Amino acid sequence: MISKINHIAIVVGDLDAALQAYHDTLGLPIGERKVMPQQEVEIAFLPTGDSLIELITPTTEDSGVAKYLAKRGEGLHHICLEVPDIEAALAEMLARGAQLINEAPVQAAEGRAFFLHPKGTHGVLIELLEPYPQADSE
Amino acid sequence: MISKINHIAIVVGDLDAALQAYHDTLGLPIGERKVMPQQEVEIAFLPTGDSLIELITPTTEDSGVAKYLAKRGEGLHHICLEVPDIEAALAEMLARGAQLINEAPVQAAEGRAFFLHPKGTHGVLIELLEPYPQADSE
Repeated sequence: MISKINHIAIVVGDLDAALQAYHDTLGLPIGERKVMPQQEVEIAFLPTGDSLIELITPTTEDSGVAKYLAKRGEGLHHICLEVPDIEAALAEMLARGAQLINEAPVQAAEGRAFFLHPKGTHGVLIELLEPYPQADSE
Repeated sequence: MISKINHIAIVVGDLDAALQAYHDTLGLPIGERKVMPQQEVEIAFLPTGDSLIELITPTTEDSGVAKYLAKRGEGLHHICLEVPDIEAALAEMLARGAQLINEAPVQAAEGRAFFLHPKGTHGVLIELLEPYPQADSE
């Protein structure tokens, strides 16, 4: 059901500084960057092989990500596992007794997704994602 | 220089329970498992596409991992990025001004590795790894 690690998400206080640090220190290329008003975050990607490192910073002071940053500081936030069919994954997770945060898939930056609650995964917020179709075969 | 995400490491209190939860909930296959006396941990892998999820539990009460678990609880611990040549990666990181934990590569479970200090990577412990040659082409 799970095809690969799509991305690892890291919460940071200063997106510009973090992006530069990851690019300068690790030599990773700088990828797409976007503001997500609904999630109250800005994100930037660094392609890493066939996966991505995602840097996230809150754009408001009372979002979940802002509270996480205030409480725990910068660092690893969640992992995202890619699936070919998000509805099938949701149904299978429910059948397997997973503790879900979302009752139905939601629109994420890169596709349709739902999250597993850290209570059921030994402390790790896990996103399941079916990416939007890529246009790069055109 | 970096070819892919080799693994994501998660620290857990009970390795058996966590391994079963990840297998049962996500349907990931159960891979290799080993005790690492020098690091005072036991680890188990769940292959995830071309990468791995690594579960780690301390085997003593005063190791770095044990203290991390006691302080922060279960959850994401570090990420491991794969490189083809660990000496070249170390030299390049030094030249790039990275803050290293190790001055030379050390023996890790799956290859030779060194770690970047979280102070230089916005809170993330990052392992760079050159895997041991695989025997599966025989």
